[in-house]
Amino acid sequence: MSQSLIDHRGPQFAGLLREVLDGLKKIFQASRSEIILNPGSGTGAWESCVVNTLSPGDRVLGCVNGHFSTRFCDTAQAHGIEVQKIEVPYGTATPADSVEERLRQDKERRIKAVLVLHNETSTGIVTDIAAIRRAMDRADHPALLLVDVVSSLASIDFRFDEWRVDVALTGPQKGLMLPPGMAILAVSEGALRANQSAKCGRYFWDWAPVLERNAHGEFPYTPATALIFGLKESLAMLEEEGLANVFSRHARLAEACRRAVKAMGLKLLAKKVEESSNTLTAVCIPEGFDSDAYLAHAQKTLELPLGPGLGEVKGKIFRIGHLGSLNELELLGALAGVEMTLTSFGVPIPLGAGLAAAETYLLQTAPDGLGRGR
Amino acid sequence: MSQSLIDHRGPQFAGLLREVLDGLKKIFQASRSEIILNPGSGTGAWESCVVNTLSPGDRVLGCVNGHFSTRFCDTAQAHGIEVQKIEVPYGTATPADSVEERLRQDKERRIKAVLVLHNETSTGIVTDIAAIRRAMDRADHPALLLVDVVSSLASIDFRFDEWRVDVALTGPQKGLMLPPGMAILAVSEGALRANQSAKCGRYFWDWAPVLERNAHGEFPYTPATALIFGLKESLAMLEEEGLANVFSRHARLAEACRRAVKAMGLKLLAKKVEESSNTLTAVCIPEGFDSDAYLAHAQKTLELPLGPGLGEVKGKIFRIGHLGSLNELELLGALAGVEMTLTSFGVPIPLGAGLAAAETYLLQTAPDGLGRGR
Amino acid sequence: MSQSLIDHRGPQFAGLLREVLDGLKKIFQASRSEIILNPGSGTGAWESCVVNTLSPGDRVLGCVNGHFSTRFCDTAQAHGIEVQKIEVPYGTATPADSVEERLRQDKERRIKAVLVLHNETSTGIVTDIAAIRRAMDRADHPALLLVDVVSSLASIDFRFDEWRVDVALTGPQKGLMLPPGMAILAVSEGALRANQSAKCGRYFWDWAPVLERNAHGEFPYTPATALIFGLKESLAMLEEEGLANVFSRHARLAEACRRAVKAMGLKLLAKKVEESSNTLTAVCIPEGFDSDAYLAHAQKTLELPLGPGLGEVKGKIFRIGHLGSLNELELLGALAGVEMTLTSFGVPIPLGAGLAAAETYLLQTAPDGLGRGR
Amino acid sequence: MSQSLIDHRGPQFAGLLREVLDGLKKIFQASRSEIILNPGSGTGAWESCVVNTLSPGDRVLGCVNGHFSTRFCDTAQAHGIEVQKIEVPYGTATPADSVEERLRQDKERRIKAVLVLHNETSTGIVTDIAAIRRAMDRADHPALLLVDVVSSLASIDFRFDEWRVDVALTGPQKGLMLPPGMAILAVSEGALRANQSAKCGRYFWDWAPVLERNAHGEFPYTPATALIFGLKESLAMLEEEGLANVFSRHARLAEACRRAVKAMGLKLLAKKVEESSNTLTAVCIPEGFDSDAYLAHAQKTLELPLGPGLGEVKGKIFRIGHLGSLNELELLGALAGVEMTLTSFGVPIPLGAGLAAAETYLLQTAPDGLGRGR
Repeated sequence: MSQSLIDHRGPQFAGLLREVLDGLKKIFQASRSEIILNPGSGTGAWESCVVNTLSPGDRVLGCVNGHFSTRFCDTAQAHGIEVQKIEVPYGTATPADSVEERLRQDKERRIKAVLVLHNETSTGIVTDIAAIRRAMDRADHPALLLVDVVSSLASIDFRFDEWRVDVALTGPQKGLMLPPGMAILAVSEGALRANQSAKCGRYFWDWAPVLERNAHGEFPYTPATALIFGLKESLAMLEEEGLANVFSRHARLAEACRRAVKAMGLKLLAKKVEESSNTLTAVCIPEGFDSDAYLAHAQKTLELPLGPGLGEVKGKIFRIGHLGSLNELELLGALAGVEMTLTSFGVPIPLGAGLAAAETYLLQTAPDGLGRGR
Repeated sequence: MSQSLIDHRGPQFAGLLREVLDGLKKIFQASRSEIILNPGSGTGAWESCVVNTLSPGDRVLGCVNGHFSTRFCDTAQAHGIEVQKIEVPYGTATPADSVEERLRQDKERRIKAVLVLHNETSTGIVTDIAAIRRAMDRADHPALLLVDVVSSLASIDFRFDEWRVDVALTGPQKGLMLPPGMAILAVSEGALRANQSAKCGRYFWDWAPVLERNAHGEFPYTPATALIFGLKESLAMLEEEGLANVFSRHARLAEACRRAVKAMGLKLLAKKVEESSNTLTAVCIPEGFDSDAYLAHAQKTLELPLGPGLGEVKGKIFRIGHLGSLNELELLGALAGVEMTLTSFGVPIPLGAGLAAAETYLLQTAPDGLGRGR
Repeated sequence: MSQSLIDHRGPQFAGLLREVLDGLKKIFQASRSEIILNPGSGTGAWESCVVNTLSPGDRVLGCVNGHFSTRFCDTAQAHGIEVQKIEVPYGTATPADSVEERLRQDKERRIKAVLVLHNETSTGIVTDIAAIRRAMDRADHPALLLVDVVSSLASIDFRFDEWRVDVALTGPQKGLMLPPGMAILAVSEGALRANQSAKCGRYFWDWAPVLERNAHGEFPYTPATALIFGLKESLAMLEEEGLANVFSRHARLAEACRRAVKAMGLKLLAKKVEESSNTLTAVCIPEGFDSDAYLAHAQKTLELPLGPGLGEVKGKIFRIGHLGSLNELELLGALAGVEMTLTSFGVPIPLGAGLAAAETYLLQTAPDGLGRGR
Repeated sequence: MSQSLIDHRGPQFAGLLREVLDGLKKIFQASRSEIILNPGSGTGAWESCVVNTLSPGDRVLGCVNGHFSTRFCDTAQAHGIEVQKIEVPYGTATPADSVEERLRQDKERRIKAVLVLHNETSTGIVTDIAAIRRAMDRADHPALLLVDVVSSLASIDFRFDEWRVDVALTGPQKGLMLPPGMAILAVSEGALRANQSAKCGRYFWDWAPVLERNAHGEFPYTPATALIFGLKESLAMLEEEGLANVFSRHARLAEACRRAVKAMGLKLLAKKVEESSNTLTAVCIPEGFDSDAYLAHAQKTLELPLGPGLGEVKGKIFRIGHLGSLNELELLGALAGVEMTLTSFGVPIPLGAGLAAAETYLLQTAPDGLGRGR
């Protein structure tokens, strides 16, 4: 009866919540943090991050290397915050040196925060957050380090404590393998101090009542209970596999994907292998072809779910996702689909070549001797 | 493969979204409106409503008659808006005359909006929104009419168009019978005009990109897809039953509940029958008893899910929910649970009396002769 | 890919099967037995029992006190077995003395088995299987003891080992709280010996290949995998509650139901309280009323799921089920439904009286002081 | 409450049952037949077929070309029926001429039935049932035609009416895409006549009470309700796609699979292309390798679900299933898995060659121009 009225206020829920919050700390590698859960999305998580740590008129430094990093900065601007941007081409990562330089120039310490994406989902580029932190240290700058880990958490090694991140934010629908519908943040003590003086208007996103009520196993308003139950399962799966294994599994599939793409004769958007994402691969479509038209063709003929080019690379790239619970056979099936649909779209591809390259790499790197026969 | 990356961008999703938006307009009785869906909650819906229609420094008139109407006003205040309140005791509705009077006093037309709850969930009181609209008309005041229908939509008759409401807001977890996790708003043309000049900081909640992308069957960010699928089912169920039948079903169960409570010798919090909610009933616990302790007892002994008293009536009332898909037998089971747990808690109740009263009323009002035997 | 071809042959399935078979032995209280699972039903379990232990031309003693015990005997007859019956009126149990007497008369030991229902589902009568075993011992008769526990296992105390039962048979859809679709048997060493010489034609039901392949974690043919997964969950729930608690929970709800029925002024079909079933209660409808018509009325008006009278008591009784995961509030809701639908059907019932009786009893017997308040 | 007691006896269930029975007739292409559903399995369906149409001492002609056709004959023998076999090597189909010859020799018309598998699941061989029927006609023999369609129905064209089949039997877990747990039979008028004189012992399997109660929308015992609900969905999916499309989809995927296997340098077990199954492909493992060991390796390294060799071909073949809802990408993923695991098992395979062959064929035969690009 009217479960929705109260079932998120009983003692059972309190235990579940505690378990989920503790489990998320392990995934963020953030023992010294608080976890904030809101119904929301990645965009909501940006807003939660911005309005809780900053004030209208503040200045921040935005590391921009793709569509989603641009929008993270847009979120700050929408709340009256001045964003100074370091912009680099799509397909590259923000150099830590540039961050250091800008921060050194900020003699008056007006920059309150550095905004950066660990993995730029629109281009498949990983930025070295440890290097960014070292750059901030070298500049001896007190800005907060605010990191989007939407498409890296629980897939690519991310270390909240070790890298002294102040806010890391994500959603449940990527590495946590759940449906979308939530904003998930890890926040440091420094971020909590900033929260006390931050002047951006907020009520729903305000961290203070969430933390206060979470301490009693409750929420200040109706939480997304189904996702909280789901998180329990996801965290158990990740715990069972072990985070290190999760990271190396993603690295192995990603490299197989990249080798397949190259064997097909296509170019990767990522300029450097060490900046290549292990959760998705952005592929350049050859000159003379429109990637949006190709995606529509791939969807129509084989229901192949590829991601489009966004922003500057619209029509020029497509993205292959390989994160979460994807296994070898599913990746190979998807790569076969890429081979077939590119061919039928008119892009000349040697059928089977990409697959052979992926198979060869996967066999060479099979865990624990499983690649060897009799 | 990486479904989450794009499955909310295909043609199938566009068709689903159109169907759900159209269906919600019928439920809001709001043919001349736009529907806005966000991952969120009722609290998020308040924030969406406030930041999209108002600016810091604006003045609004808040109708306060319980815990949730207070918090709706708090949301506005958190965004720098001045709230003038009409406060009436818990258990009563805001008189339309008071609204008229306040608006007449506002010669300079500084009040930008009237904030009101159709059904105050903390007390089970329904406010007559049609009367509020007539009061605003009599005062010839241009303020927006912003209405929380969280615990009334799809349960108690609510007419967006006819009453010229500007924003009506709710979540999926009450009359729409889904898990929580979404903010659902119907907005008028007037609200959309206000949106253009509203200065509150916003990015995630901003209506403009949602409306623009919805027109192409998309969202500006990852939507709560599972709930959108769920809405399709809920709307089909409501359509099949017919809105008028849904309203009369709730009215009948609510009256049975009230008669049972009175037959148990207990008092209703609602002072007037015409202000009594058809979705939940707030019951006063007799002097000398603490309703929070009673709720803990009821939860522990029979896992009976009752709502607590909030705000001014904390410890003094408990709430029986009777909305959504609840049927006669479930209501009677719950009322039996109330009889038993009150008795074992030490409140002297004539066992069976409440049930007999409810059964009698339900038999007298059985639809279409079903109450008659051979 | 083609999971159905082989997923019931992997090592994971073998572990699941072992766990489920061991768990079922605990529920049957049958450490010295083998468990046989087939896709099927209770009727299939009768057939499995008969064709695996008997030969055409054999004679058996059938204890008949209702519709289902009659059909158990019919199963034997359909396979060319001669059934001598001890028939007692519906609403009573087979006296152990009658069994003893018949077996003593069988000087030539031609009776190969005694067929008996622990709980006759059509009448709600429990037969004392321990007493039947003692009667067989007193007669020093070697017949097999074949017991239907379809509506008693995991609800009413049944002791396979202690009572030296030879075959106990059931389905998943009663005390095991699963959908129907399976025949579940516990078989003794004596039954396995009988199996070797039993001449009834059989292939699908044959125990030998099932036992042989189960020993390797497999089945000789495609098993009902979904139900085997379900059994794992059911067994875990029963284990967590504890069998003794499961039995006393059923006993308490059943007594509450019987008291409610009597307080409504109706008669129970069961003549003796010690023979009354704790899983269902058969209620006599007053003279002048037809229970089949009443059931149709209850179904139509409140979707109240009651069982009909079968065989000799067709039109004369209706049955209230109270087994499995049913809780107090659901029972009280169902009893309220009985009060309301009887009234509207024209049977004069004091509304609320039955509920008050049930509530009073449940409060008096609330476990562990939970019935007491402050 | 005690739903299991009666929810398969209400009017809703009757409508569902009628819909499912009618839908199955379309799938069997059997307008002049009755459909019989039992909880069970394919083995149970054999038993149902045998005990309902034959008597101990009868003689039948068994077409044996693999493990499952052998077991169909075993079922008959277990019930005292004499089976004369036409045995051909694994990997070939029973020639219709042999059937004609044997029936011509049966001057006394002692052969009561011909037992044959439409698709021998252990070898992937399709027997031409239309040719068998013509052979029976030429011999002018009145034997019943009893056909196992376990792995062909709803995947390979099967025409009950046109080929004058008497019993066709299957389970839900192949072409009907459901979990296992049921025996599904289509029976002709001739089979129903035979049923009246068939003397095999039967109670659970007996068709007469099923047909009688089905006519009232009921079953004589608890049916596998979950599967009956599932059938409704499966039938709707097949109806939407259209049977002809379902058959050609299976044919196309099967041919792609066979071409891939040949391009890998492996041999098919099937000697003739026209006898090759469209639901599964049996592949010979090269000399010097044991296919059981290979299957264990494939399961362990990639969780690749392949079927083992059974009976005469144990250790010599493995089987790739490609029926039901399998799509192109899943097939290609599975073929990639075969390439990789064979390689790591030590069988020299040119990586990518099989995939290229399958991709090429699938592109050439893409439906409706979908294979062509811009």
